Amino acid sequence: MQTHQTYLEANRERFLAELIEWLKIPSVSTDESKKADVRRAAEFLRNKLLEAGADTAELCETAGHPIVYGEKIIDKNLPTVLVYGHYDVQPADPYELWDSPPFEPVIKKTALHPQGAIFARGACDDKGQTYMHVKALEMMLKTNSLPCNIKFMVEGEEECGSGNLEPFIKQNKERLQADVILISDTGIIANDIPSVEIGLRGLCYVEVEVTGPNRDLHSGVYGGAVANPINVLCQMIASLKDEKGRITIPHFYDKVQELSAEERAEMAKTPFDLETYKKDLGIDDVAGEDGYSTIERTSIRPTLDVNGIWGGYIQAGAKTVLPSKAFAKISMRLVPHQHPDEIAELFEQHFRAIAPKSVKVDVRFHHGGFPYVMPTNSIEYQAANLALEETFGKKPIPTRGGGSIPIVALFEKELGLKSVLLGFGLDSDAIHSPNEHYGIFNFFKGIETIPLFYKHYIRLKNNA
Amino acid sequence: MQTHQTYLEANRERFLAELIEWLKIPSVSTDESKKADVRRAAEFLRNKLLEAGADTAELCETAGHPIVYGEKIIDKNLPTVLVYGHYDVQPADPYELWDSPPFEPVIKKTALHPQGAIFARGACDDKGQTYMHVKALEMMLKTNSLPCNIKFMVEGEEECGSGNLEPFIKQNKERLQADVILISDTGIIANDIPSVEIGLRGLCYVEVEVTGPNRDLHSGVYGGAVANPINVLCQMIASLKDEKGRITIPHFYDKVQELSAEERAEMAKTPFDLETYKKDLGIDDVAGEDGYSTIERTSIRPTLDVNGIWGGYIQAGAKTVLPSKAFAKISMRLVPHQHPDEIAELFEQHFRAIAPKSVKVDVRFHHGGFPYVMPTNSIEYQAANLALEETFGKKPIPTRGGGSIPIVALFEKELGLKSVLLGFGLDSDAIHSPNEHYGIFNFFKGIETIPLFYKHYIRLKNNA
Repeated sequence: MQTHQTYLEANRERFLAELIEWLKIPSVSTDESKKADVRRAAEFLRNKLLEAGADTAELCETAGHPIVYGEKIIDKNLPTVLVYGHYDVQPADPYELWDSPPFEPVIKKTALHPQGAIFARGACDDKGQTYMHVKALEMMLKTNSLPCNIKFMVEGEEECGSGNLEPFIKQNKERLQADVILISDTGIIANDIPSVEIGLRGLCYVEVEVTGPNRDLHSGVYGGAVANPINVLCQMIASLKDEKGRITIPHFYDKVQELSAEERAEMAKTPFDLETYKKDLGIDDVAGEDGYSTIERTSIRPTLDVNGIWGGYIQAGAKTVLPSKAFAKISMRLVPHQHPDEIAELFEQHFRAIAPKSVKVDVRFHHGGFPYVMPTNSIEYQAANLALEETFGKKPIPTRGGGSIPIVALFEKELGLKSVLLGFGLDSDAIHSPNEHYGIFNFFKGIETIPLFYKHYIRLKNNA
Repeated sequence: MQTHQTYLEANRERFLAELIEWLKIPSVSTDESKKADVRRAAEFLRNKLLEAGADTAELCETAGHPIVYGEKIIDKNLPTVLVYGHYDVQPADPYELWDSPPFEPVIKKTALHPQGAIFARGACDDKGQTYMHVKALEMMLKTNSLPCNIKFMVEGEEECGSGNLEPFIKQNKERLQADVILISDTGIIANDIPSVEIGLRGLCYVEVEVTGPNRDLHSGVYGGAVANPINVLCQMIASLKDEKGRITIPHFYDKVQELSAEERAEMAKTPFDLETYKKDLGIDDVAGEDGYSTIERTSIRPTLDVNGIWGGYIQAGAKTVLPSKAFAKISMRLVPHQHPDEIAELFEQHFRAIAPKSVKVDVRFHHGGFPYVMPTNSIEYQAANLALEETFGKKPIPTRGGGSIPIVALFEKELGLKSVLLGFGLDSDAIHSPNEHYGIFNFFKGIETIPLFYKHYIRLKNNA
């Protein structure tokens, strides 16, 4: 019987070619004009699950983009792992900053990826990482080594808030029954430093609108006497943080869990070089909340970032307009035990409270997600730990990520299941940015590691 | 011989029809794609000047849009009036806020304009007001009542800084020799309250760029540790004014001329109703520099307004991006004796000084103009005053406008000539805004008043 290694060698090129086909489909879930492409991406995945050997695989309709569900049940008495991923991708703009078109994947070697990396929107987040699970399933089935039941639930709305996932889960609790969730939508510290994400930040995303006069005005005739909504919005946004980099929204930090000195000392051991970090980003200095390290600022501390701002005349040339409106998209990353809905309410109350009488403000809540932490003494964490140690040849480091996967908290709430974050990306993969890419080393390392997680998980569970 | 009155009655409809034809040409000078239309608008004017009876009228090429020059010399020994205007218009966006297309003029009655008003971009600013002079010339020639020589210089770049006017003037000093400049690009207080603008604010228009990381980043992975250029730009802009509404740029007010208590008391007599003002703009409160009235804030005090701001993800939906760059267009209105170049330099020095080490900033100078004041004891002012009193039947009020006509200071510097601001618009005409319009009453009142200015000016000059 073939080993995983020999099967992988024999099918390496095909696996890459299939992923590249998938990446060519611009499944941008926030873009209405891409609706048909999003669906094509879902159909592609369904077909590949069936080809891999799943018993069933289908598109489940939702109020938005479909959810791809598939399963391989080998024995009802064996444990079941539910794999979650998403086939939708971030918008690719600004297009002009891509070295190659975002939906025309190319393989290029880089300093960090001497074996080459696939450059395309979604290469890492999350098509590339999701596809590792499809190929791992195929490999285990073709080599008769699948030790448990596997279910796949891959959504098409992760990049726009997973709004239709909760109703789907509530309606399909029976079908989604499992023992653990396995997700590859995170990263490792480096290709020679394996790590497991044991924490995630939550998210609260709002959009604000500030209205001054009821029409655009001539800045000469009215300037100086009528509040300019852009100037006001800037003042309001600036006031959301104090000189220590702390968020000024009343009660914002009330539920934030402070880590112990021991926990912070443990975190401080994570390999990190500030100079390399600054050099990679082209910045002369980092900036953030006083009293916390860069690693802490991006993991155990909440944030407030303006993700977009616009108002007035923003085309070439000059227009002396005092505009009627100004807008901003603002998101806050949350940490245990902040509640996205509570934070949204605190934000709105405060934002309305600080608005001067000369303007009107509107606040719209886009979407949110809960923060999450995985206990390191759990079987789930141990299994991931051992699998990585086996493929990388060294002990992985537990880390806490700054991103958000709202689904993780949702799973715990609705299905009572823990999620294992077995991701293989690198911070340098430029997800959500131009020139997103995913290392070929990482892609195949993932396909190798996933079956080992199953092996150790089943063993530990049987011994438990 | 026909009187002006009877000639006007007989040609009323034609005058309006001609203006409407001109307004159909989208001569947006800041829009490269409209270059041909801008030229067509210039050719239309040249032809109308010749039809009106000008000896010569031609397009004078510049590095940008052409300048239309024409003249009617009846006697070299008589005084010469140089009429200045502009045939270019502001961009019309946002189009969706226009009740009728900006370049498809329609005549509609309004509360303030029971005789109807022409709705179109440029209807008032400045095609409508410039065309009054063309028709006044025609009327005086057809009725043998032109008392002096007239020269026309109408540019096509007023809305983008008049960048090519100074070289043109320097090269044509001989040809442009005159005794006074006459400009209709301002307004009166109301159709039953005539006024003459005796002051204008200057302008300093800059564009700023704030760069954080060298690429767009994932706000989860980097948020909290890397300066967000939008948040930083907001903080920098907010800091440009203090809680008293004063601009914080060092030395910004050094050359600002403070008015005497008497002058301020005189200004306070200008009819103004704050409630009506707020109701018209749909605002609950005005806002501006402490210690000054609304009229003072929009005339004798400098301002700082953000005319446009943009950065990050500004389309529908949500994107959790920590952007690389943020931009803003910022303009400052200046008062005597502020110097636009000095202010630009003070702004740039200060803006660079307040930038945190975590970002890089760039400042570009768009264009500027000098402030201006006309002495009320001058022959020029007196002539305008008498002309308006004759057509409106009441004494006009001297006012100081908030807008800028950089050309006015340029004329004084290069040609040593005073400019008379004999405008007939209303603040409610929505220039630079959607639904710009110009009252038919105002259009014809202007054509009636202009010849009277000539009459009084020549008389006063001969008696001087």
